[in-house]
Amino acid sequence: MDVFGGIEAGGTKFVCGIGTGPGDLETTQFPTTSPQATIDRAVAWFQAQDRARLQAVGIGSFGPVDLHPDSPTFGYITSTPKLIWQNYNITGAIRDALGVPVMMDTDVNAAALGEARWGASEGLSDSLYLTVGTGIGGGAIVHGRVLHGMLHPEMGHIRIPHDLSQDPYPGCCPFHGDCLEGLACGPAMEARWGVKARELDPDHRAWALEAHYLALALATWVCTLSPRRILLGGGVMQQPQLFDLIRKDLAQLLNGYILTPEVTDGLDQFVVPPHLGWRAGVLGALVLAEQACASEVAVLSGKNS
Amino acid sequence: MDVFGGIEAGGTKFVCGIGTGPGDLETTQFPTTSPQATIDRAVAWFQAQDRARLQAVGIGSFGPVDLHPDSPTFGYITSTPKLIWQNYNITGAIRDALGVPVMMDTDVNAAALGEARWGASEGLSDSLYLTVGTGIGGGAIVHGRVLHGMLHPEMGHIRIPHDLSQDPYPGCCPFHGDCLEGLACGPAMEARWGVKARELDPDHRAWALEAHYLALALATWVCTLSPRRILLGGGVMQQPQLFDLIRKDLAQLLNGYILTPEVTDGLDQFVVPPHLGWRAGVLGALVLAEQACASEVAVLSGKNS
Repeated sequence: MDVFGGIEAGGTKFVCGIGTGPGDLETTQFPTTSPQATIDRAVAWFQAQDRARLQAVGIGSFGPVDLHPDSPTFGYITSTPKLIWQNYNITGAIRDALGVPVMMDTDVNAAALGEARWGASEGLSDSLYLTVGTGIGGGAIVHGRVLHGMLHPEMGHIRIPHDLSQDPYPGCCPFHGDCLEGLACGPAMEARWGVKARELDPDHRAWALEAHYLALALATWVCTLSPRRILLGGGVMQQPQLFDLIRKDLAQLLNGYILTPEVTDGLDQFVVPPHLGWRAGVLGALVLAEQACASEVAVLSGKNS
Repeated sequence: MDVFGGIEAGGTKFVCGIGTGPGDLETTQFPTTSPQATIDRAVAWFQAQDRARLQAVGIGSFGPVDLHPDSPTFGYITSTPKLIWQNYNITGAIRDALGVPVMMDTDVNAAALGEARWGASEGLSDSLYLTVGTGIGGGAIVHGRVLHGMLHPEMGHIRIPHDLSQDPYPGCCPFHGDCLEGLACGPAMEARWGVKARELDPDHRAWALEAHYLALALATWVCTLSPRRILLGGGVMQQPQLFDLIRKDLAQLLNGYILTPEVTDGLDQFVVPPHLGWRAGVLGALVLAEQACASEVAVLSGKNS
């Protein structure tokens, strides 16, 4: 049976997987070091698997990345703050080493895609996947496809109302101060409250404030992307009490304006945790590998458009 | 030659057009009254044209509207505050009277589509059209298609930072108070400054504040939808000084974080006025009519998917 390869290329670790889906996925993971050493290790692992069956590889990468097929740096990691990875052709490196088609997207877009194929947004044409951890990132599925646009979303950096009288913390984003990420990522919680987020009591008022910031962002995305479901993952979202706080706040913010069953029937099925856990990214990368194969076939048969 | 019909169904007036594009479009317009009388008038006008050549009709309508093909109220105007138009099957009324395929979308989505076909966003796969007037509405083109999702965007209702110490005006949105529309629509400007927006001097500080609110929203959309161009239309945007104020503020808000040529080469080609003026909506409706024809052919040949 043919199989696909997936790589979740994270800033601190790589997750590699091979298979056709959640049922047969085999994975490995190791720390991210230099580009050469890290890619060599990934390639060696894929080669040690049943490489003859490997049809293509997908990569969900930390970014920013260049996703424009007509760009000379298509498939590169570009202006990342991780200097040794700047302007690195990760797609080309994997393609040259393994001799198979390769397709890349951002890590969070890959996770959104994995969840839309096999997870909490399975079968939905339009969904949003948000990860809230060291940073905040979002991937949108629109009409069944990952939204890219000019670059790719940088959803952590949207502006939200910040009531300085209630929360004098100025935000930690080096570019924007109190954008969403600056106010609501894990490091912002730690800087505001003086302890790591996971050490805060579940009843601490930190969680209501965190839920409020996330609900403000969700209200903006409901009015902009109109997703059929919103998935919230990442380290900060491991606090289960956050979900109900966010749903309650979001309902108050929308205030009866959006009259769809998803919203008016309660938000329990609208704002949910992902289903695929840590495997969402690498499973999404498998979907990218499938797409790489389909593109290759289209090119070979002259059907690329 | 075959022609298409377009209707921009507005809350105060209807614009009807017939043709194949900007070069041969013939139009008429009349006030919106009751559904029956208004539709009768539109139908009579189309019938008085060379009706034998009319292949299909597209409608860009005030909303909210039901755009889900699998819904029993598909093609209806739904919970509009204009009570006599509530739950009105505008699509069915036109289809039954003219005997041609009909496709509907929101008025602002139709305008976004018209501009993407023949206007300021011509040929771009991803763009945003915003209208700022009595209300604020936005239509997004993603991968060449209009974004719909769960409902359709309600972009005027996103939340933005509101510095009450600089601007104590509480906002005029009956649902959300100081959402974008509540702070930045034409009536909000009139309520805040005591005179109609168009009577404010071009140097009045009202315009810098207006530009700031719109730039905050644009920054959020750049980070969410990543459009390749943003078109700003509507009555409030008739003030040409607003464009440079918005561009300057948006550049400061993004603060070097989004490194694409569209953004870093100055924003003169990124934030622009629409090209089609008042005809954007009715021309977009022609594109919807084309799509209605294509769907019909697909259904008849079993290729609908």
